[in-house]
Amino acid sequence: MESILTETYSIYFNESAYEALNQHLKRERYSKIFILVDENTQRDCLPLFLSSLETKLDLEIIEMEAGEMNKTIETCVQIWHSLSELGGDRRSLMINLGGGVVTDLGGFVASTFKRGVDFINVPTSLLAMVDASIGGKTGVDLGVLKNQVGVINQPRMVLVMVDFLNTLDKRQLRSGFAEMLKHGLITSEPYWSKLKETRLQDSLDEFIYQSIEIKNEIVLQDPRENNLRKILNFGHTLGHAIESHFLKKDEKTALLHGEAIAVGMILEAYLSSKLSGLGPHQLEDIKHTLLERYKKVKFTEEDKEAVLSLLIFDKKNSHGLVNFVLLKCIGDTVIDQRVPHKLFMEAFAYYED
Amino acid sequence: MESILTETYSIYFNESAYEALNQHLKRERYSKIFILVDENTQRDCLPLFLSSLETKLDLEIIEMEAGEMNKTIETCVQIWHSLSELGGDRRSLMINLGGGVVTDLGGFVASTFKRGVDFINVPTSLLAMVDASIGGKTGVDLGVLKNQVGVINQPRMVLVMVDFLNTLDKRQLRSGFAEMLKHGLITSEPYWSKLKETRLQDSLDEFIYQSIEIKNEIVLQDPRENNLRKILNFGHTLGHAIESHFLKKDEKTALLHGEAIAVGMILEAYLSSKLSGLGPHQLEDIKHTLLERYKKVKFTEEDKEAVLSLLIFDKKNSHGLVNFVLLKCIGDTVIDQRVPHKLFMEAFAYYED
Repeated sequence: MESILTETYSIYFNESAYEALNQHLKRERYSKIFILVDENTQRDCLPLFLSSLETKLDLEIIEMEAGEMNKTIETCVQIWHSLSELGGDRRSLMINLGGGVVTDLGGFVASTFKRGVDFINVPTSLLAMVDASIGGKTGVDLGVLKNQVGVINQPRMVLVMVDFLNTLDKRQLRSGFAEMLKHGLITSEPYWSKLKETRLQDSLDEFIYQSIEIKNEIVLQDPRENNLRKILNFGHTLGHAIESHFLKKDEKTALLHGEAIAVGMILEAYLSSKLSGLGPHQLEDIKHTLLERYKKVKFTEEDKEAVLSLLIFDKKNSHGLVNFVLLKCIGDTVIDQRVPHKLFMEAFAYYED
Repeated sequence: MESILTETYSIYFNESAYEALNQHLKRERYSKIFILVDENTQRDCLPLFLSSLETKLDLEIIEMEAGEMNKTIETCVQIWHSLSELGGDRRSLMINLGGGVVTDLGGFVASTFKRGVDFINVPTSLLAMVDASIGGKTGVDLGVLKNQVGVINQPRMVLVMVDFLNTLDKRQLRSGFAEMLKHGLITSEPYWSKLKETRLQDSLDEFIYQSIEIKNEIVLQDPRENNLRKILNFGHTLGHAIESHFLKKDEKTALLHGEAIAVGMILEAYLSSKLSGLGPHQLEDIKHTLLERYKKVKFTEEDKEAVLSLLIFDKKNSHGLVNFVLLKCIGDTVIDQRVPHKLFMEAFAYYED
């Protein structure tokens, strides 16, 4: 597959990704390479990755604990200390080998260590391939508030090796697929239709490529999320609050990002049907398609109240109002929509019905 | 005094600073203003500052503890939480009212809160006016290692109100003056000579202006410190290590930044005389001038060893080598100089002699 160009870097695929990386290492005069992994990617991905790496530079492996609950400033502090102690300097390179937690957190650590060193993202989960590792958003959570602390800073390159998906369980794969479905909903009805017919055991290469193209096109036009880029938040305003709430409630049964976003997309599709003209058949299509793939989540009344009170902390808010991205139809969106509070409970009722 | 233009913002002085700020607040549609202070600037500077502020926006004051030992990630975490709890969003404005610790740390907090909100620096110490608040370096210390974590990000404006200097004790004023003397040493013999004749009780307005112009010119040409900007580190390679060492040893008797840099400048002037052609008269002039103003610091053998071992962590290092900025003569520099280790002890001997 051909590489995809962004404004400042390229995204490479499969064999050509290793080639591009090895050439990059020859060209740049790095002092040292740090590879950030979690215990899963250290076991499942690092050996393959290292075997294809051609460099004489010193390599250091830094391991963090896997999981969203470790996407914290405390983890960053540990890694900054490790970088210092292992002799990291301004000409160090950091390679983030992992899912969205590793690429988000690793990107932030690299962007702030000694006021910024180069980093490369090597996403190993579907979610990170089609979403987290592209677009320059880096950061960590603050308590239960997702991505409260971070910067926008681009990697030097992104390497998408689809083979790494074989190391994922089906639940992880399904979680990432939610972001791809979102790409269809916000930009392309034909893409949505194709994805509906796709099973997770099918080859996803072509769709991964198309999703990255969609996200990249959007980010290119609005890197700092002043306008267009907001459409990528469809499903995320409520979805993030749901994800935060269940993470806070019980880390062990917490929802994966895509699972929470799937709920958020149904809720926000309902809001779209009330406020931005989404038709009833398309609304039903969205609910039906998502519930077929993502098991219905049970919400108590307390859960719902807690989710709504978390909404006001969502970082997409401004001036204390909650802004939503809504659908005009499948494939088209409208941004900066304010939603009357009473509709939230109706949306939950529609979801549960 | 006329405002000074940088690439992306302006530096305003005295009365015109308040005018510029109030106009800026009218023009931008901020949701809320957060003012970061420490207990000293809250008491000594905030009342005057607030009395000149014209805005109907909500104001929140966030206080941090004063002093370099609080320039930590832990302090950032507290402030990020405060911003969240007080309803900060992406359209919030942060005003950093304080010395270098407040502007460095506040700039970093603002640059990373929700991936970046606007901030304005209002330096209240001489050091912050002529150095810390200009040039976009933000960050915090990691343990004893200074400025290990941060980003380069520019404020929206810098407001220099020279009256705030009346709130400083003489030791603080003298500390800031060291950076001005450095500006003379690295760029202008005439400026150095004028500063030598200046006493701290004289009006410093003209010199503050000139020092800001010098720093700004350098930063404009090399914002990310690839080459020219390194000259601002004269005296800082050893100076930072000395500052870190004494901070670690005993926070109460720690040196102020300028006091440590004054020692660093004498040591690095000695290295310059050995390696980059600084003449013996100018070397003596530098030592004499600085020791007249900055009391000689006593170093035990252990102190010296500890300082030198800290050197390898200085963030200006690359590939494990220690790079110095040295003087060719007063007013001219050479960057990226490697120094044989044996000269370090000689330099200390010269300082102590």
